[in-house]
Amino acid sequence: MQIRTHVGLSLDGFAAFADGLPAWDAVPTFGEGSHGIDEVTEQCPGLVIGRTSFDQGWEHWVSHWPYDGRKVFVLTTRPLPSGTEQYGVEAVADPADLRRQVESAGLAGDVQVLGGPSTIRTLLDVGEIDLLGVCILPVLLGTGVPLFAIEPVGFSAERWAASPGRPELPAMLPLESQWLFADGSVLLVYRTS
Amino acid sequence: MQIRTHVGLSLDGFAAFADGLPAWDAVPTFGEGSHGIDEVTEQCPGLVIGRTSFDQGWEHWVSHWPYDGRKVFVLTTRPLPSGTEQYGVEAVADPADLRRQVESAGLAGDVQVLGGPSTIRTLLDVGEIDLLGVCILPVLLGTGVPLFAIEPVGFSAERWAASPGRPELPAMLPLESQWLFADGSVLLVYRTS
Repeated sequence: MQIRTHVGLSLDGFAAFADGLPAWDAVPTFGEGSHGIDEVTEQCPGLVIGRTSFDQGWEHWVSHWPYDGRKVFVLTTRPLPSGTEQYGVEAVADPADLRRQVESAGLAGDVQVLGGPSTIRTLLDVGEIDLLGVCILPVLLGTGVPLFAIEPVGFSAERWAASPGRPELPAMLPLESQWLFADGSVLLVYRTS
Repeated sequence: MQIRTHVGLSLDGFAAFADGLPAWDAVPTFGEGSHGIDEVTEQCPGLVIGRTSFDQGWEHWVSHWPYDGRKVFVLTTRPLPSGTEQYGVEAVADPADLRRQVESAGLAGDVQVLGGPSTIRTLLDVGEIDLLGVCILPVLLGTGVPLFAIEPVGFSAERWAASPGRPELPAMLPLESQWLFADGSVLLVYRTS
């Protein structure tokens, strides 16, 4: 069992437009099953969603549940809305417990982390993501909700003067696979654990 | 003649470490001519640098000029430091004039925009970049100087509620080429004009 992301990212690093619509919507060629989504869905009987994203979706999902046949986990410390029990939705209070809870569910495959961005960052931080899949979309949004880059700094002559001139080297993430789509989107999948 | 970038970008969108060292330095496999740099150097007899980056380099370059045989343009409204004339360095006061000035120089090839990030963004904004080449490095830096993503927003339930549910579609940038390197870095070159 592996915990994976498959997130659309504009070339300038946004996972969503400023109003919260996913960056995937920026490419007109995005649609049912495109961009490797069918493959991920097939391989992932499990789904993990952050509470903010879940609440965004739930108002529609309560009457038209889109995840039949998949087991949905929601990262949250608050009680789930009533109605979720009919779909077998399970709350995960501690992100570091995700893997254990998913394994207890006995799924025959992987788990896809839907997002949002802060959920992906949280799970990365606690080492609960095995494969970080990002699909670089050939667009510049200019603004929006970034997946990463949430601690930007400007260039500073003072910091430059004080720099030892050698960076602390971060871990290299092995690139497991890449997939070029006809519209110029490129899926890059990195192993992170 | 085309104006091009060839910038190393961490997976989380940083072109430089917080102290100003280039993101390229994050990959131990980066070195003389690696990651397509020889090819770009060969094809680009011209170079464009922003004033901040130029000043960073000049203290070393004044005695050991690294750009023999290449014509260097500096985006700046201030006079260049003395000594630059011996290397034929040329100031460009108006970014929108870059192409005209480069063409006047009669170079037999392309021009590479070295950076920094704000220079790349400025030239993109005025349509003076033809090929946007970014090399996605397989590392997460956590913080640093972003290439883009300088207008991030957080998710807002209010904006979501007010969203028309359809984004304004940005232009799709044609992907001209991609190049996978042995260390998992991936060069993506987009046509932007």
